[in-house]
Amino acid sequence: MKAIILLSGGLDSATTLAIARYQQYECYALSVDYGQRHESELTAAQAVAYSLGVCQHQVIKIDLAAFGGSALTDPSVAVPIKGEKAAIPVTYVPARNTVMLSLALAWAETLGSHDIFIGVNAIDYSGYPDCRPEYIEAFERMANLATKAAIEGNKVVVHAPLINLSKQEIIQKGMSLGVNYSLTVSCYQADEAGLACGVCDACRIRRAGFDKAGIPDPTGYKRD
Amino acid sequence: MKAIILLSGGLDSATTLAIARYQQYECYALSVDYGQRHESELTAAQAVAYSLGVCQHQVIKIDLAAFGGSALTDPSVAVPIKGEKAAIPVTYVPARNTVMLSLALAWAETLGSHDIFIGVNAIDYSGYPDCRPEYIEAFERMANLATKAAIEGNKVVVHAPLINLSKQEIIQKGMSLGVNYSLTVSCYQADEAGLACGVCDACRIRRAGFDKAGIPDPTGYKRD
Repeated sequence: MKAIILLSGGLDSATTLAIARYQQYECYALSVDYGQRHESELTAAQAVAYSLGVCQHQVIKIDLAAFGGSALTDPSVAVPIKGEKAAIPVTYVPARNTVMLSLALAWAETLGSHDIFIGVNAIDYSGYPDCRPEYIEAFERMANLATKAAIEGNKVVVHAPLINLSKQEIIQKGMSLGVNYSLTVSCYQADEAGLACGVCDACRIRRAGFDKAGIPDPTGYKRD
Repeated sequence: MKAIILLSGGLDSATTLAIARYQQYECYALSVDYGQRHESELTAAQAVAYSLGVCQHQVIKIDLAAFGGSALTDPSVAVPIKGEKAAIPVTYVPARNTVMLSLALAWAETLGSHDIFIGVNAIDYSGYPDCRPEYIEAFERMANLATKAAIEGNKVVVHAPLINLSKQEIIQKGMSLGVNYSLTVSCYQADEAGLACGVCDACRIRRAGFDKAGIPDPTGYKRD
């Protein structure tokens, strides 16, 4: 059975891909180039896709930056280094998961697949509304009214296998499935070679995850 | 109040924009260039947006054709000229309305708008699953779990003012609101100048609508 896996190049989506592969799906990886600053993510996505043996890796370009509104796509908004946790992070990209899941749904329908995997996580990123279980369920329900497959009785399932895992548990799961985390990039301001800053929110959460899992952090950090 | 209006350049979305304007919204028109064959649609969208005085018209390019699967985006699938009505038309683009509404949601969130207008119509296009009221309701419900605005208590509303109107009623409504239908293109295989073939499903439905409304058809047709 075919499955679409949303693959960002980060730690979570690499783990999600490994889980889908472990569940015997033929994996079709989809990366969305939404005009993000950190293009090294896409390079990482390619390396991850290759290392985990996907059937196909498709990159769809879409200029969400034209809409502005996030530190990840709008150069006029600064990436927060540390400091207080805001209710909703400024690194939130408007409707990002909705846009990405919609594209996954389009490809799934074309391939005759009814399974979509997304590496959202409600615990470490609780500030993002579109990482919550009730959101994923609502998307799935909508998808089942939207598509030809649904009309024909093939229910679309949106799998979010990390949704209730801590970063530590995600890393332990991925290690047991052979994920090479040195290929992944989580940093919001990684350089072109994919080296991480070590100080942004994403870096701190990732480093703490390896610490708690008792696994040496394989992340490449910039020297300064 | 600001609203996002999905504008394809066709008759239905032009009417929808006129309705939103009549309801006193500040209109932000969004066209999605999803790799469709008929680029004259986008030229028409610009002309319609200008003629109805939008605040801004944004075109987002996204290559749905990379996924294939439809006569509208895949050159290997023929556009049907006439003949039997299939259960689901081959001109169906996978997850198209879901992708377009998701992009509208992203822009709405950035603009601080909570109103999205889409010109779907359940009567003339009943073969498309994503034109049904239950689909629109499910999208709206999902959107209200997806966004920052929803978290802050600003409910997103997806307006589908044409959903239960016949083509005749849509045309009568639009004429009463000053829509210039000669600017719109409905044909699946219009030429570069926007001239219509007159024989595809979209042309036949459109022509019949003007006939029933008792209004001279302003469409420019190719000579052959």
